[in-house]
Amino acid sequence: MRKLLFSLPLLLLPLLAAAQTVTSPDGNIAVTFSLTDGGRPTYEMTYKGKAVVNPSHLGLVLAKDKHASKGLDETDLMDHFTVADVAQTSFDETWRPVWGETATIRNHYNEMAVTLKQGIEKPAYKGDGKAPGLALDLQERTILIRFRVYDDGMGLRYEFPQQRELNYFLIKEEMTEFAMAGDHTAWWLPGDYDTQEQETQQTRLSEIRGRLKTAVNWGNSSVAVFSETGVQTSLQMKSADGLYINIHEAACADYATMHLELVDEQTTALTTRLYGGSNQYTPAPTPSGYPLPKPYTFVSHLTPDATGLKGAMQTPCHTPWRTVMVSDDARDMLSSNLILNLNEPCALDDVSWIHPTKYCGVWWEMIVGKSQWSYTWDYPSVDLATIDYTKCKPNGRHGANNEKVKRYIDFAAKNGLDEVLVEGWNVGWEDWANMWKRDVFDFVTPYPDFDIKMLNEYAHSKGVKLLMHHETSSSTQNYERHIKEAYELMNKYGYDAVKTGYVGDMIPRGDHHYSQSMNNHYLYVIKEAAKHHIMVNSHEATRPTGLCRTYPNLVGGESARGTEYEAFGGSRPDHTCILPFTRLQGGPMDYTPGIFETQLYTWSDNKSWARITLAGSLALYLTMYSPLQMAADLPEHYERPDLAPAFQFIRDVACDWDDSRYLEAEPADYITVARKAKGTDNWFIGGKCDENGHKAVVKLDFLDKGRKYECTIYADAKDAHYEKNPKAYTITKRTVKRGDTLKLTEAPGGGFAVSLIAK
Amino acid sequence: MRKLLFSLPLLLLPLLAAAQTVTSPDGNIAVTFSLTDGGRPTYEMTYKGKAVVNPSHLGLVLAKDKHASKGLDETDLMDHFTVADVAQTSFDETWRPVWGETATIRNHYNEMAVTLKQGIEKPAYKGDGKAPGLALDLQERTILIRFRVYDDGMGLRYEFPQQRELNYFLIKEEMTEFAMAGDHTAWWLPGDYDTQEQETQQTRLSEIRGRLKTAVNWGNSSVAVFSETGVQTSLQMKSADGLYINIHEAACADYATMHLELVDEQTTALTTRLYGGSNQYTPAPTPSGYPLPKPYTFVSHLTPDATGLKGAMQTPCHTPWRTVMVSDDARDMLSSNLILNLNEPCALDDVSWIHPTKYCGVWWEMIVGKSQWSYTWDYPSVDLATIDYTKCKPNGRHGANNEKVKRYIDFAAKNGLDEVLVEGWNVGWEDWANMWKRDVFDFVTPYPDFDIKMLNEYAHSKGVKLLMHHETSSSTQNYERHIKEAYELMNKYGYDAVKTGYVGDMIPRGDHHYSQSMNNHYLYVIKEAAKHHIMVNSHEATRPTGLCRTYPNLVGGESARGTEYEAFGGSRPDHTCILPFTRLQGGPMDYTPGIFETQLYTWSDNKSWARITLAGSLALYLTMYSPLQMAADLPEHYERPDLAPAFQFIRDVACDWDDSRYLEAEPADYITVARKAKGTDNWFIGGKCDENGHKAVVKLDFLDKGRKYECTIYADAKDAHYEKNPKAYTITKRTVKRGDTLKLTEAPGGGFAVSLIAK
Repeated sequence: MRKLLFSLPLLLLPLLAAAQTVTSPDGNIAVTFSLTDGGRPTYEMTYKGKAVVNPSHLGLVLAKDKHASKGLDETDLMDHFTVADVAQTSFDETWRPVWGETATIRNHYNEMAVTLKQGIEKPAYKGDGKAPGLALDLQERTILIRFRVYDDGMGLRYEFPQQRELNYFLIKEEMTEFAMAGDHTAWWLPGDYDTQEQETQQTRLSEIRGRLKTAVNWGNSSVAVFSETGVQTSLQMKSADGLYINIHEAACADYATMHLELVDEQTTALTTRLYGGSNQYTPAPTPSGYPLPKPYTFVSHLTPDATGLKGAMQTPCHTPWRTVMVSDDARDMLSSNLILNLNEPCALDDVSWIHPTKYCGVWWEMIVGKSQWSYTWDYPSVDLATIDYTKCKPNGRHGANNEKVKRYIDFAAKNGLDEVLVEGWNVGWEDWANMWKRDVFDFVTPYPDFDIKMLNEYAHSKGVKLLMHHETSSSTQNYERHIKEAYELMNKYGYDAVKTGYVGDMIPRGDHHYSQSMNNHYLYVIKEAAKHHIMVNSHEATRPTGLCRTYPNLVGGESARGTEYEAFGGSRPDHTCILPFTRLQGGPMDYTPGIFETQLYTWSDNKSWARITLAGSLALYLTMYSPLQMAADLPEHYERPDLAPAFQFIRDVACDWDDSRYLEAEPADYITVARKAKGTDNWFIGGKCDENGHKAVVKLDFLDKGRKYECTIYADAKDAHYEKNPKAYTITKRTVKRGDTLKLTEAPGGGFAVSLIAK
Repeated sequence: MRKLLFSLPLLLLPLLAAAQTVTSPDGNIAVTFSLTDGGRPTYEMTYKGKAVVNPSHLGLVLAKDKHASKGLDETDLMDHFTVADVAQTSFDETWRPVWGETATIRNHYNEMAVTLKQGIEKPAYKGDGKAPGLALDLQERTILIRFRVYDDGMGLRYEFPQQRELNYFLIKEEMTEFAMAGDHTAWWLPGDYDTQEQETQQTRLSEIRGRLKTAVNWGNSSVAVFSETGVQTSLQMKSADGLYINIHEAACADYATMHLELVDEQTTALTTRLYGGSNQYTPAPTPSGYPLPKPYTFVSHLTPDATGLKGAMQTPCHTPWRTVMVSDDARDMLSSNLILNLNEPCALDDVSWIHPTKYCGVWWEMIVGKSQWSYTWDYPSVDLATIDYTKCKPNGRHGANNEKVKRYIDFAAKNGLDEVLVEGWNVGWEDWANMWKRDVFDFVTPYPDFDIKMLNEYAHSKGVKLLMHHETSSSTQNYERHIKEAYELMNKYGYDAVKTGYVGDMIPRGDHHYSQSMNNHYLYVIKEAAKHHIMVNSHEATRPTGLCRTYPNLVGGESARGTEYEAFGGSRPDHTCILPFTRLQGGPMDYTPGIFETQLYTWSDNKSWARITLAGSLALYLTMYSPLQMAADLPEHYERPDLAPAFQFIRDVACDWDDSRYLEAEPADYITVARKAKGTDNWFIGGKCDENGHKAVVKLDFLDKGRKYECTIYADAKDAHYEKNPKAYTITKRTVKRGDTLKLTEAPGGGFAVSLIAK
């Protein structure tokens, strides 16, 4: 760090030296900015007078680069700031999402933009190749910290205007603090640079370290846990006095994904780091000169690149928004549009080709182990450039074959499903994951038993589309090399959506799923897809931050523990009562619900079973909002006489909405929501609960006055239970009107689904 | 390293236990293979009975990967081998290069393929996900070491057949030894992962450490020197008893470039590593369990990736050839085709579009500093997505403008030059290098003052083509994203050749210019270019290894200190008497000769001067073989009355040949070569010497019997001198016939050029 030599003259208005406060439109939330401790930017946040974020520092530590002399700046953006300007404005606009939970979204906030100046001494560089140190200029750098305060929370971000004094810089760490006011209950995932597919942990903040230490081997997929108190966002919390608080980020584009490292009573330094490979914690010092924040402060921790750096920046630029949502009503966490509102408006001129989609697919049978993605077992490894699959001996277990796919197409056509996903259609699945293969797939060559032309024509003749699958095996370089031909192939055959996958270790080697360059990659894919009018459903990519507002062809994603884990040992019954509070804050999830035959051992060698009742599965089409909804189970299950009646709900339910009302909610306990189907007067209601069951009381006061509705209720049977009796359900019909009340009993691990068709 | 538990039963024929020798067709070279020290593969090499390579070990150390349990092998390929088979064969074939120094090339060698078995204990893995350690199988792995022995040297490589016991593996280091038989004189470059643009050092092997230590800051470009005794290849040496020995590699594709680390009297461990950024040597241990080789043994050192690993391999695969050329006549080092012969035959079906090319270009004036690549100085940094160059204030120094380019086209048309290179034609040059910018160029958008359509049409109307320039700024990801559109643009406007550039630090960050992934990138570019019928001239890429035989659209490259350094302080006069022994072994170099006005200060603010006489510059068109030859100086210099007569030679000289005869050669002293122009009976002769001058005696015994030739001699004037009187030259004409002798005096830093036109 270069020495900070001088402070700016104190010409500034006294007004600017004092703390500055901006409040939410309804006045409930107040965010106050001030400079403390030698010019360190600091903010705090209250809700109805209660502390949400105690005074917390803002700043960035920059890397000392060998090219600093060429204009790459190295003076940290941590302190020695003075306030040059504070501008407060208001904004109120209503916009229409291309798809969503409501027909319109109000974006209403008060904003405070704080302009900060920092005096620094740095070598003069004017592009003339002059060596560093020959001349030291006294210079002044400018950054902005922008706050937007909504009725349901706030966002803040750092902005770096273009200026010769701050031109290119490398981020060693962003040091944004979130000082919690108490030892809250939190629903958290362990900090990890490569996966968020763990089970959510529910502990007090003070218990995170203990839980994380005793469960370092997260088994399923954890690769690079960076700290003994590191957690991911979106992080949902609840305070002892009943505040719901959520920390996440919005509009993370070309910037590393943010994690949070908790300072607790035992923290001695920031940041410890643990890599899965060695299982060794390597303590790293706190950035020099700054005292540790108080417990329970979260400090941002960005995902590094292969060299350990967090970001390469060029002004003008800005960070993503760091968001804190707060309410004393849990339902507000779910109905909030804060993340979407903090993203930029739609960047696509033509969105006519983007559409909500219900689909089935050749997928679950492979997840369960009944069939395979691969085509042959002839080779210990595969070289796509030389192998001739037509000469291989088929393994007889290849799922994506013509006959099977036609069966799915027929099923989709018969049941009003829009598309059929087919995984394992393309060559390369014999040795696709974690072998450090660059050229693992070419994304254009089908296996011999998948007739891409015939199958697409067959599907189109029945009014159905095929849904493309591009597993990249995390060989992102390989995907980028093939992406144009791959999308041209899709255009040629009439695919309009692709499910991408990023299983395994990143290539280029040393990079991570959530680094700046990988986030750039995911967005590159979305933009290239948009050019080809292709919708994207991105699996194993980084967690979303609302970019689907700007690029609405990003219709779904995974980035969490999905239904597939029900075949890998199962997920806890409360899992789907947590995800809407956490993973879904940033955008819809392709959770792939609809497993009717939850007991996998009844039809396969898989010993696992889904921790959900059948009625609970139906509820997910409402409680897990997504414009992309799968009917994930096998057609033969949906057609079974005992299960077919329930499938009627999946046929009926919409996946795009004019209105949504969260009626009941408590994290990890229950969620009840009513939604009005797009362009209709019909409503659908879903309720999902945890392992304890739930009694829902649904007042139908949102229905049109004087109108009658045919109400069909899919409910857990009296003795239903997610383990002991998961498929016990009832269907009852009645006519209802506004003002009526539905009383519904959800079984342990269960739920309900209701359709209300306007007469 | 897993424990090696058992040795194979000794059923093998006694024959296989003994040393095996293969000799060159002429019997002068013998290479002997044996197993020593517990089954370590070992070879030695003699020439006419003299030791060239003393007994030297072969082997690879594998990385311990977290995915070892999934089939990634970790038992080192160093020892515990037994010989399973030795096969000796002969090969003799004559092939025709698409372009070259001779019309045909004879590929004549004796081969010895040694099949080795290694018994290992490893966890059973059969693709069933079984955890490691549950079962230990006794397994046997097979590798081959293949030797090819030519009259002028030998190549050896490791081959890894496809086998379940050796499927995927990560290379920690290749440990190929080259034990030199004495303290030879060597012409070397410091080991470096990112540049080979240093001045060659001439020392004894024992002096390398001292020279490298005292000159750690190699000034111009050195980034990552890895060892105090690390050197690059091709490494030319000369023994005290007059043997010329050269170590290099052939056919390096999708494998890291090899460096050599010398074990000398002071070596205590392999490998020390020094990065330019910290200037700190970090000693690393010798691979455990193996004693240090004796002085003066070179040990291979591969270029690492961002994680420090050297390669990710999938069987079947092989390493590049490790080559040792040897002769007691220095001329054999220059006429050798060993590197080309060890490469695969041409992989392109159609080569009709590939042609030798003489060109000029808008280039030298920018190198010298008289004009600029950039267009504006309005911005401290540039974002291509938002900047509007038509609204910028031009800096008035942009070289690639319509008027200037037309001037060059006119000049090329008038003088029979085929193409005109234009650098700085495309947007992004304002902040292009070393800023860690990914999106630095788009390769398709011209600056406002470069009318790409008009200029190409203008050139074509005069029978000239423009030569494309793609500086990547080492942002290889960005180049790969744009490469298809960039080549489509070239096709659209009629470009058929591109000069690529890789200045600055690699993006993805942490990678190096010579790593496996970057070598893969360069080849990817060549293959993509071939698809578009584009020739490639690749600057700052890794040093070539003869891949131009397989991909003859790779018509040139830089990968060494080129003429540009004459504007950056100059290169030593002997530089061009070394390069043909080193850099040119792997393929032609775009050295960009032809600087007539060597004293740059006479026409620019550049204080530098080229260390060469004008006649010496003409000689380079013969002594520095390349199918791509530039006339690098400004048209106005070539047209100056005092210089124009000499330019006639550049107009006349061919750049493709039916025959070449190296008449005189000594590394760093002098080179004289005669070449017969393709498809004609005309010959051209060039002689180039170092700072001491040279008296060449050229016997014209290669001319057609009974035929007369008009001979034009471009020679240094009597008082010519590369510093004091560089432009003093004479032109004399006479008629000559076979058997005549030309006696030519080369001035210090000078040379001569002769054209012999058959009457």
